[in-house]
Formats: sequence, C-alpha cells, structure tokens
Amino acid sequence: MDFRFSDRSLAWQEKLSRFMQDQVIPREEAYVASVRANPKLMSPVMVELKTKAKAAGLWNMFLPGEHGAGLNNLDYAPLAEMMGRHLWSAEVFNCNAPDTGNMEVLHLYGNPQQQDLWLKPLMAGDIRSAFLMTEPAVASSDATNIETRIDRDGDHYVINGRKWWSTNMAHPNLAMTIVMGKTDFDAPVHQQQSQVIVPVDTPGFRVERMLSVFGYDELPIGHAEVVLENVRVPVENLIAGEGRGFEVAQGRLGPGRIHHCMRVIGAAERALELMVDRLMSRVAFRKTLAEHSVWEQRVAEARTQIEMCRLLVLKAAWMMDEVGAKGARSEIAQIKVAAPSMALKVIDDAIQAFGGAGVSGDTPLAEMYASVRTLRIADGPDEVHNRTIARLEYAARSMKAGH
Amino acid sequence: MDFRFSDRSLAWQEKLSRFMQDQVIPREEAYVASVRANPKLMSPVMVELKTKAKAAGLWNMFLPGEHGAGLNNLDYAPLAEMMGRHLWSAEVFNCNAPDTGNMEVLHLYGNPQQQDLWLKPLMAGDIRSAFLMTEPAVASSDATNIETRIDRDGDHYVINGRKWWSTNMAHPNLAMTIVMGKTDFDAPVHQQQSQVIVPVDTPGFRVERMLSVFGYDELPIGHAEVVLENVRVPVENLIAGEGRGFEVAQGRLGPGRIHHCMRVIGAAERALELMVDRLMSRVAFRKTLAEHSVWEQRVAEARTQIEMCRLLVLKAAWMMDEVGAKGARSEIAQIKVAAPSMALKVIDDAIQAFGGAGVSGDTPLAEMYASVRTLRIADGPDEVHNRTIARLEYAARSMKAGH
Amino acid sequence: MDFRFSDRSLAWQEKLSRFMQDQVIPREEAYVASVRANPKLMSPVMVELKTKAKAAGLWNMFLPGEHGAGLNNLDYAPLAEMMGRHLWSAEVFNCNAPDTGNMEVLHLYGNPQQQDLWLKPLMAGDIRSAFLMTEPAVASSDATNIETRIDRDGDHYVINGRKWWSTNMAHPNLAMTIVMGKTDFDAPVHQQQSQVIVPVDTPGFRVERMLSVFGYDELPIGHAEVVLENVRVPVENLIAGEGRGFEVAQGRLGPGRIHHCMRVIGAAERALELMVDRLMSRVAFRKTLAEHSVWEQRVAEARTQIEMCRLLVLKAAWMMDEVGAKGARSEIAQIKVAAPSMALKVIDDAIQAFGGAGVSGDTPLAEMYASVRTLRIADGPDEVHNRTIARLEYAARSMKAGH
Amino acid sequence: MDFRFSDRSLAWQEKLSRFMQDQVIPREEAYVASVRANPKLMSPVMVELKTKAKAAGLWNMFLPGEHGAGLNNLDYAPLAEMMGRHLWSAEVFNCNAPDTGNMEVLHLYGNPQQQDLWLKPLMAGDIRSAFLMTEPAVASSDATNIETRIDRDGDHYVINGRKWWSTNMAHPNLAMTIVMGKTDFDAPVHQQQSQVIVPVDTPGFRVERMLSVFGYDELPIGHAEVVLENVRVPVENLIAGEGRGFEVAQGRLGPGRIHHCMRVIGAAERALELMVDRLMSRVAFRKTLAEHSVWEQRVAEARTQIEMCRLLVLKAAWMMDEVGAKGARSEIAQIKVAAPSMALKVIDDAIQAFGGAGVSGDTPLAEMYASVRTLRIADGPDEVHNRTIARLEYAARSMKAGH
Repeated sequence: MDFRFSDRSLAWQEKLSRFMQDQVIPREEAYVASVRANPKLMSPVMVELKTKAKAAGLWNMFLPGEHGAGLNNLDYAPLAEMMGRHLWSAEVFNCNAPDTGNMEVLHLYGNPQQQDLWLKPLMAGDIRSAFLMTEPAVASSDATNIETRIDRDGDHYVINGRKWWSTNMAHPNLAMTIVMGKTDFDAPVHQQQSQVIVPVDTPGFRVERMLSVFGYDELPIGHAEVVLENVRVPVENLIAGEGRGFEVAQGRLGPGRIHHCMRVIGAAERALELMVDRLMSRVAFRKTLAEHSVWEQRVAEARTQIEMCRLLVLKAAWMMDEVGAKGARSEIAQIKVAAPSMALKVIDDAIQAFGGAGVSGDTPLAEMYASVRTLRIADGPDEVHNRTIARLEYAARSMKAGH
Repeated sequence: MDFRFSDRSLAWQEKLSRFMQDQVIPREEAYVASVRANPKLMSPVMVELKTKAKAAGLWNMFLPGEHGAGLNNLDYAPLAEMMGRHLWSAEVFNCNAPDTGNMEVLHLYGNPQQQDLWLKPLMAGDIRSAFLMTEPAVASSDATNIETRIDRDGDHYVINGRKWWSTNMAHPNLAMTIVMGKTDFDAPVHQQQSQVIVPVDTPGFRVERMLSVFGYDELPIGHAEVVLENVRVPVENLIAGEGRGFEVAQGRLGPGRIHHCMRVIGAAERALELMVDRLMSRVAFRKTLAEHSVWEQRVAEARTQIEMCRLLVLKAAWMMDEVGAKGARSEIAQIKVAAPSMALKVIDDAIQAFGGAGVSGDTPLAEMYASVRTLRIADGPDEVHNRTIARLEYAARSMKAGH
Repeated sequence: MDFRFSDRSLAWQEKLSRFMQDQVIPREEAYVASVRANPKLMSPVMVELKTKAKAAGLWNMFLPGEHGAGLNNLDYAPLAEMMGRHLWSAEVFNCNAPDTGNMEVLHLYGNPQQQDLWLKPLMAGDIRSAFLMTEPAVASSDATNIETRIDRDGDHYVINGRKWWSTNMAHPNLAMTIVMGKTDFDAPVHQQQSQVIVPVDTPGFRVERMLSVFGYDELPIGHAEVVLENVRVPVENLIAGEGRGFEVAQGRLGPGRIHHCMRVIGAAERALELMVDRLMSRVAFRKTLAEHSVWEQRVAEARTQIEMCRLLVLKAAWMMDEVGAKGARSEIAQIKVAAPSMALKVIDDAIQAFGGAGVSGDTPLAEMYASVRTLRIADGPDEVHNRTIARLEYAARSMKAGH
Repeated sequence: MDFRFSDRSLAWQEKLSRFMQDQVIPREEAYVASVRANPKLMSPVMVELKTKAKAAGLWNMFLPGEHGAGLNNLDYAPLAEMMGRHLWSAEVFNCNAPDTGNMEVLHLYGNPQQQDLWLKPLMAGDIRSAFLMTEPAVASSDATNIETRIDRDGDHYVINGRKWWSTNMAHPNLAMTIVMGKTDFDAPVHQQQSQVIVPVDTPGFRVERMLSVFGYDELPIGHAEVVLENVRVPVENLIAGEGRGFEVAQGRLGPGRIHHCMRVIGAAERALELMVDRLMSRVAFRKTLAEHSVWEQRVAEARTQIEMCRLLVLKAAWMMDEVGAKGARSEIAQIKVAAPSMALKVIDDAIQAFGGAGVSGDTPLAEMYASVRTLRIADGPDEVHNRTIARLEYAARSMKAGH
C-alpha cells in the first residue's frame, strides 16, 4: 500500500486549504443567513464563492481523468475531507452529491447528445440534478425491489412510480433528474432496471412533499418525495441501454460511498477540534473539563478512531484506483459502515462537552449529527454492507479450504 | 421493596389509558397541524383536550397530597410513562415540565399571596410558566457558578443576567417565570442563591432568541435565551427567603428528574412497539426483518433494557416516597443517567429499522431522539450524576471500613 | 410487583450473612489451599463448614416447600446472592449447581425408590451428582439435537453417547449422574428425550478427560467429557417416563438459570467492592485513582447496572413464584443474558483497576471472570435466549394487532 | 504515507510464511505436550525448531540495522503478525519479548564487555533474560514511583527491592536480568533511575513465586515475583550510566509496544479465521451459524476492526522509521490501546461461536484472550496511554490557537 499523494494532489490540497480559510469559512454565517432569508433563490454568497472557486481552478476535483482535475480516488480523499468539515462547501467546488454521481454517470454512460445537453451545464455548475432511486414502499437496500415502471410507448418512455429521499429537489437551480425504474419486470433480476433522464419540468413529474432530517430541512438542497404519473420522455433520454440500470447504479455507488466517507472524516475531525477547544476553555468544579480524566479517554478514543477510519478510507480509495470498485468491495463496505458510526460517536461526545449549546444551532454539531446519521441508511444500510463483508469472508475461507 | 400500585393508582391508570386511546391518540395529527398552522395561538385541540381531561378528573396527577391526585411517586410512575409515549400529551393533563416543578415549588415554598396569584391559575391550567436557571456563560452543572444578580433596592429586587434553555417561553399562555440568581455573592456557596417570581411582562425582561433542538423548535413549548436587564420586582416575589434558592432548586429537581425518566420509559416502549411492527411488516431478501437474527438480538436487548430501567425508576420513586429525595440521591442519579441512554439506543435502533422514514417526520422517532438526547444534559449532565453516584459508593465503603 | 422478603427470608439472610462473615470468609484461603494440596480428597475445611452450616440449619435453602427451607424464589434470591460473592461457598450450604437441579428433578419427578436411594443422600450432602446433557458434536442450544441413545433392552436401558461440560465430575463425593438421551428418535421432537439415573460406577461409564475454563480446572468441582459405551442401568432408573426428558429438563432449567443470575449479582457486587477499595487506596499521578473522573464514571455505571440487574432478578423470581416458569419465560431469558454481561463488565473494570494483580490469582477477579464467562454459553447461549425474548415480543404485538 | 514493504521484507514474509506452515504449525501440539511434560527442561521441539529457523536465516528479524535482519519497523510488522498467530512461535525465531527488548537495550547502550558477555549469547538464542521493572507496591504506570534501591558501595551496586510480572523467569535457559531501580532518590524525577545487569545466580536474588494469568501459568515463559535482598553486582554491570534508566526504558518501550500490537493483529486474524470456520460448519435451527445475520454483523465488524488496527500499526511503524519513537508517540499510544481492545472483542466473539469449546483448551481462544488481556495493563495501562494522546491533542490545539 502506498498512500503518498501525487504532487498534483499536494498542490490542490494547499490551494483548497487556503481557499477554505480565506474565502469559505469567513462567509459561512453569511451563507446560512442568505439561505434562511430566501431559500428559493440561489444564495448570492454561493454564487460569488462558486465564481471565485472556478476562477481559481478549484472545480470538479472529484472527476478522474482529463475532464476533471485528473486526480484519482486516493488523491481526492484529502480534498473531500476538507470539504467535509463544512458540508455545504462541496457545492462551492461543484463537488457535491448527488450531482457528482450524476456527472460520473453521464460522463461514463451518456451519449454525446446527453453530455451536451446535461453534462456540460452540470460540469459548469449552471444547473443542479437529482437521482431518483429509493422508493418509500419497498426496502431499497435490495435494488431488485424497485417498483417504478418505465414503459416503452413508441418513441417515448412512460414512467410511473413514487420515489423519495431525492436530494437536491429544493435547489433553485434544479433542472434534471435521473430516474431508476424497471423496463422489464420479467428479465433476470439485475437486467430489469433502466435509468432515464427526466427534466423536472416534464408534465406528470411532481414533488409531493419535502422531507426533514431530525427536524432540519437541509435547504437549499432538500430531500423530496416525488410522484411520477405518466411522465413521458423521448427514448433518447435512456442512459446506456435498456436493462443496464443496475450496472450503471453500481458504477456510481462505489465512488459515491467513498466520497461520503472522506467527508465524514472531515466532519469528525472538526467535531474533535470543537470539542477540544471547548474542553480547554470550560471550567467545572474548579478545573477545565480537559483536566477531567473522563474527557481524556474520550478525546483519545476520538483521535484513535478518526486515524483508523482515515487510513481505511485511504486504503479503500487506493484499492479502487488499483483494482477497481469490484476488487475493493469489502473495503468500501467496511468504511461505509465504520466511518459514520465513528463520526456519530465523536460528534455525540462533542455535543456532550458543549451541553445545551451542542444540541442547538450554536454549534454545527447537532446538524452534523443528523446529517451523518442518514449515512447509516443511505446507499445501503449498515446491515446490508456488513452482510457483504461477511459473505466475502466466508467465500475467502471456503476457497482456501477448497485447495 | 414493594412496587404494588395503590388501588387509587390502578384506577387512574385504567382511566388515563382509556382517555389516551379514545381522546389523545386520535387527535395527535390534528394537534400537530394546529400548532404548525398557528404556533402563537393556543391550539384549539389542546384547549378541547384539556377541558375534557379536567372534566374527567385526569388533572394534576403529579402533585402528591390532597392538592393533587393524592398519588405518591410510585403511584404516579405508570401515569407519567403513559404520557411519555406521546410527549406533548402531558400538557393535556397539566402534568408537563417545567410547570409541574414550578407548581411544586409554589406549593411547598410559596406564601399565600404567591399561591393565590400564581399557583391557582397554574393548577387550573390557565397560565404557563418557565424556570430560569441555566446560563450560557457558565457550566450550570455546578449551581454555584450562577452569575445572575438579584440586588435588593428598597422594596424591590433588581435582576440582571442572562439565562437560556428556559422552556415554555414560546407558549401562548406563558405568564410568569421563576428566576434563580444570587442575592449574596459572598455567602457560603449554597446560601448565595435566591429565587424570585418574575412576570413575563416586567420591563427589562426580554426573549433574546429561541433555541432549536436538533432542528426542532419544539413549539408550542419552545426554549429561549432570555436577557434580564434591570428587571424590578417587588420583594414580595421572593420565594422562601434570601439564600434559600439552592435548597428550593434541590427540592424541585428530585421529582423533576424522576418524572423525566418515567416519561422516557414510555417513549422507549413506544419506539420498541413501532420497531417491532416495522420488523414484522418489512421484507428484505425474501424474509421479514423480524426473521433476521440481528434484529432478534436488538429487540431482545431493547425489551431487557426497558424492563431494567423501568424497575429502577420504580425503585427510585419508591425510595423517594419512603426516605425522601436525599435518601434516594444515588437511585435518582442512576436512573437519570440510565434511562435516557437506554431510550436513545432503542430509538436509534428503531430509526435504523425504519430507514429513511426513521430520520424524517414520518415517524415520531427522530423527534423523540432529539428530545431524549437533551436529557443527558438537562438537570445535570451524565458526568455529574455519575460523579454523585461514585462518591456515594466511596463514602459507603469508607464508612464500612471505618468500623 | 411486591419484592418484600418474607420474615422467614429476612431471618435467613441475617443468619447466613453472619455465618459467611464468621465462618466462611475467614476460611477461604484454607479451603483453597486444602483443595490444591489434595484435590481428590474431600477438603477437611469443606467438611467442617458443611457440618456447621447443617447444624445451624443453613441447609438446602434453594428447595421450595416443606422439604427445603420453605422459601420461594424471591425469598431465596438474597441468599443466593450472598453465596455468589464467594462462589465455592454454595456447597457449604448444599446449594450448589448442578446438585440443586438434580435434587429438584428427583423431588418433583423421582419415584419413591429413586428418592430414597439418591435424593436423600443428596439432600444430606453425603454424595454429589452430575447432569449429563450437553454434547460436543452438536449445538446443544437446540435440545432436539441430542444424539445420545437410550435403548430399551429387556429390563434395562443401554446408553451410548458422548457428553461434555458435565460439572462435578472431579468431586471426591460424586456418586450418580442424570443422563439425558433419546429413547425414540422418531417421536415428535419434544417427546424423543428421556432422563435416566446412571451411577458413576456403572461399567462403560468413563471420564474421557477434564476440561479447563480459561486455564482454571475449577477443582474440586471440575468439568468433564464423558463417554458412555453400552452403559446398562435397570429400567427403574428412568425418571418420570419415556419421552418426558425435555419436559423434565425445562423444569430444572428455569430455577437453575435464575439461581446462576442471583449468584452473578453477588459476584459483581463483590467485584465492585474490591474495585472501590483499590481505587481509594492506589495513588497515580499524585491522587488516588478514585479521584480520576474516568473511574467515577465506571464505578457509577457498575453500581447502576448492578442495581438494575438485581431488580430484574427479583422480578423474574417473583414472577416464577406468581405465574410459574412458563409465564416468566421472557424475564428469565432477559436476566440470563443481562446479568452475566453486566458482571463481566464490572469484573473487567475491576481487573483494570488492579492492573497486574487483577489478572493473577492475587484477587479473585480473573477466576470470577472465567467462571461468569461460561454463563453466556451454558444453559443456552445469549443468542438463543435473545431469540426467545424477541419472539415473545413479536407474538405479543401480533396478538394485539389481531384484536 | 508509504506502506509498501521492501523487497527484503517481502522475501522474508514469503520465507517465514512457508516455515510457519511447514515447520511450526505441524509441531504446535508436540511443543505444548513437551512443555507440559517437563516445563523445567528446554522443550526438544523448541530446540529443533530454533536450530532450523537459525539455519534458514529466520533469526533476529526484530533488530534493525546490520546486526539483525536489516528490517525497519514497517518491514518487520508483517513478520511479527505471522508470529502473533501462534504466540509461542516468536521464540523459535529469537523474536520474543522481553529478550528482544533486552537485546535492543544492550545493542544501543551496552558497553563492549556487556555485549560480549550477554548480548552475544542472547542473539545466538543460547540464553534467555528478564526485565525487572514493575513493582507490586506502586502504580508502575508512573515510572517515577519505583522504590527499588540501587546503592553504590565501592566497586559494587547493592540492590534491594521487590519486582513482579518479570517475564521469562520460569524459562529453563534464563541467565540474566536487567533491573530498573533508583540510584538517586533526590535527583530530578527522570534522572533518579538506573538499570543494571543482574545474573540470576547472584546471591540475594530470589524468585518469590510464579504468577498466573487467568489460570494459565504461561510456561515455559512464566511471570514471577522476585525479591532482591542485598544483591551485589560489580559497577561494570551498570547500563549507559547512573540516572539514565528512564531514558533507556523509554528507548525499549517504543518498539516493544508496537511489536506487541503487530502480534495482536495476528492473534485477532487467527481468531477470526477460527470463528468463520466454526460458523460455516456448525448448524443450529436448521441452518449454519454463518447464515444467522447476527453473526454476519460480528464477522463484518471483526474484519473491519482488524483492517483498521493493522493500518494503524503500519502507520505507527512507518512513523517510527521516519521520525522516531518520540514523533510517533501519539500513534504508538493509539495502537497500544486500540489493538488489544479490538482483539479481545474478536476473540470473545469467536469464543461465543465455539460455545464450550471456546472457553476450554480445545481451541487456543481462551488462552489468547488471557494473554491479550494483559496488554491492556502491561507497558502502561490504557488510561495512561489515552492520557498521553489527549494531552498531545490539547497541546496541538493550543499551539495552533497561539499563532
């Protein structure tokens, strides 16, 4: 294993770090205020920061190869971690989910017309997109459960279904969505699904309601329940081909999961910093909290767990670069489970250190907690990833015993 | 130990249970909608339910002795647990914090005039009240830290200070507060504090802002940061006497803590029910979640932990009845730490069982989690209660060794 | 729930407590030394203590009704807890497993001849016995797995099989065993098993080897792997009747499990005492360990967890008295899982407080740990008990939903 | 970070792996039997294996630089891990504690005469040694507590004190010890200590008793309590210089701690393998344990935790190579706490999977558990390492805030 970052990555780290310090962090309050004041308009703070970031070349770092920053997964990890410290900032650099996943999909599987129409403005940061996969009626951990129908009707597909947890649906710039559904309910289980592009202004496409996360609306992003009723799109909107929806989904989920984990490490690191600062400044029973040994244990455990999770993120990223997402399946599943759990513990301890300030909006901790908590569910719940890991272990031992 | 409930308690349990089933639970959605629609007006649903509850005699069950329902702490426990299943319902029966604590204080320490002016309308459910103790600037776990000044000036007290986490401050019927401050910064540490009644319309009394709990505003109750700037109240508003503020606070915190724990048991029990129903109805990988053995372990652990915490609540309540709050100090501290932690685990598992529905408003789980999480901080953080328990252990062993 | 002890129990508690202080604890070292010096002979210390205990009437307290001390399960709990503090002491009072279970079985199901031959000397403490149920080849958590054959041959049963974890097999006074096997492999699953009495000197009955528990041989008790090869016993040795082995086993396991839990509470309580004494006397970094707040948290958690488990033991015992073992199934399973886990944590923390002394023979902690660890496996592993609890929850909710 | 192993390391890994498979593992039973049969004589199996290992050049791999195998800490990690799978095997390769630490000390600080007399035969594997540091009377986590006196008397030092947990004291080839004591009780706290070589046949040097670890005597190694009564050694036996004992101790503890952790990873990995094999072969309730989802969760967690700890070991080793033990202080402390805790959990789960076989001698698990449990105490208890980590965090934030 070689976790050395390329010179290119080191340069970007330096640049991004400076930009965060100089531009992003000082504007955090202003950004939050602008969203609260007018959630349906693009925040002028975001517009300004995006312009600056783009000008500085801090843009689309998530995308490997020549079209992005040319960084592999390992190289991108420290950049994602930095953005994870201030979760809203990923959008500044056009590196936020689910747009990143959609861009990857269009980059890999989109035809020239789709790339022209949708990938370009997404890469430019001019529009936003959503990915409609999860459904309220069935356990989404099992992709074969999907009930949304995509029926061919002449030159069109007609889509009917109900989706939820569609992220970005409140975004002022939202323009298109990618919808996962079934074109053939009778095909082999992993060839039933297809993905099609559905612009948000298509008739029959309706936001039923917005969903909250522990009381947060997570604006300007927002998560929605969406109803698709006889939604018609031209057949050209099909991505990759009929029956390839599962394959396309797998392709996006590998990097997506690991990006989440990188950001989660950053969130945990920031929570630890906030906690330590609090502990060193708050006095109870005539000494700082930092001097109470129970907090020594918690700080130490936080540091140790963060270190271990960061190393596992790097290993998973390195393996994706070396052997691809399939070869890194166990490692991706491992970190997908381990990172959010670790971060929740660190954030929860930090909340405890802050007392009332911790659960309120006076620190970012409670909102971080809510946000990270969803990651034990989104993109596959812990239980399903653990199942994957265990089965790979069983298979490995069986093979060994077989020799 | 004798945990048998009195016939009186059994009759009230039966009555309350029926009222919850027939009146409260069917109106839950309507109540929530009414608050959201108009948080600054009394919810008509609440008004109606209060009227019915009062008419049915389901009123002030928390108050021991002839003035209340004549139930001791043990007898009250199962009633509080029922209300804890639907946390908002405590107000229906005039049994919600912090009004209950304020009524207890006025009942025990108020002079006839104070009781006439404030206790009566509180007992009647006509007005609401707040208790202003915690301060943002200092660790409130140590009551001696309080910085709010209460200065005598002729026939008045002049109060200056800043409080927060003052619950009920958004309530449409809020009329008065009890403020904890220091009348003498040079007295022995536990004789510096006093408590005075401050009507909310007193000049200089100002709500600085409302606080959120994990994104929830917890309306119509609400928690506020309050500034008191040269607030003048007549000396008659002093409770009990100068320098007795700490003693008065201790008196209210014993029952208050245990009422919280009783309600928390109810919340955990409801979370377990929701989880079990979900597990039995949701299918993944061709069997119900209930049939996956990992969920068997979690359900079993939830049941076991709830049982144990309920028994410890009953023991603490029974001891308060038998030997008073001081003699039950360790048990109260034990359950104050154990019950919220237990409930958070059960609720968190239930959230996991529900997936996306669990973190959203589609189940009461996320809001329950947020609410219970504050109890690891409010009325003394876990660490301070554990300190109390440990020191009582040390003292007990020292005494034994001393013989 | 009424956890008040009868006057009779209170009197026995007083008496047993005094006997433990005056007779047992002062002889602990001498007892251990005598066993080490000559494990194959009855320890003279044990002989002397048994004589004294019997003379004092502290004898067979475990057996309900007129034949024993007339104590029900609730009344017996505090006595068992006291014995659990010094695990070897249960034998002093003829209250040790598995003899207690065997006596219960013979008391309830034995015919007059069996009672005369075996129950009497067991009750008198003159002989010891073993119970041969678990088998190395199959998962014993599922009683239907048993492979030992009990074949009728004229006036005899011929037994063939392999058992292990047969406790008491090293005891100098061991005289008889009760063997669980199958008389009919084709009967309904719970009517295949039978239990027969097998004296240890029966030809074909052979101790294959003794088993260690974390390096301890647990002498003079000892656990053995036993081979039965064409072992012939007269048909009169059958207990209760052919096909009733499962029923008889269930009968013994209820009280047996709860006795274990009572003793485990005592073990945990003693570990906490040892820990507290250590913390108050040991100095590191210029203050006692007790003053380090990390230890405050652990001591408090230990106290809280012990209290909760003790209450659950009492509830399970009380329920067994009120509604029988079947009605108390969930509670027995709950405490069977909760008590050992709790005790292991307390003992482990105590070990940590003692450092090197904790893992060695200088404190009883390491041996207590080993002994309690087996209880997460013996008489059904945690996972199976949790399965039972969960299924009862599922059934309860189903029934409720069915109305 | 670059965790690539050198070609030299890869070659040694290959060679060691083959030797383990071909020579060590097939002889494990024979080795254990030979020790049990005659613990006071060198095991002929060990003698033979040592001869073969030495001949194969698999010797002293732990020692960096030209005198050893020329491997740095990172390169040594996978070798130590392999030996950790079968803990007794480290001696086969002359890589077992505490001899390794003593060789390092003599290599770095020994004068030519000391190296000639003691280092050479140690490196040759002809003699064994012990390190006498920990004392029963004081908290050894604080090295300044040491009470053993080393008084100069002409050309001799006279040593008086009591030590315990001196490992190797039962070894048939034990020849010398290094004793830590104080030459000057009035010097600055870290200059009071000195280390001297004491041959085991020096008059006044007495093994008081052997200590057990959870019932295991850990022969042929063994841990002893040792009394030194007017033990006289020539002043030439002083290592490094008077007052340098603390410095010398620190030098040995860095690598020593990390070697322990490497071996612990190996032990955990083996426990996981045993667990998986068991789960796939054992049937309960009509399916293999592996198919019960609770075990999927445990296997997955074990795999994830092992991966993370291994990565942290590699990081700590790499840092020691890059910036030395002082710069790697936090990482060494982190892994010293994390690795044993992780391994204990994995081993404990494996025990549970095996049931009765797990706690007995039929699997290596119980003995592994006991052995790893001591590592949460030895070379500094978890609490002290966590304190170190926390203080480094506090210092880092203070420095940052200071800018």
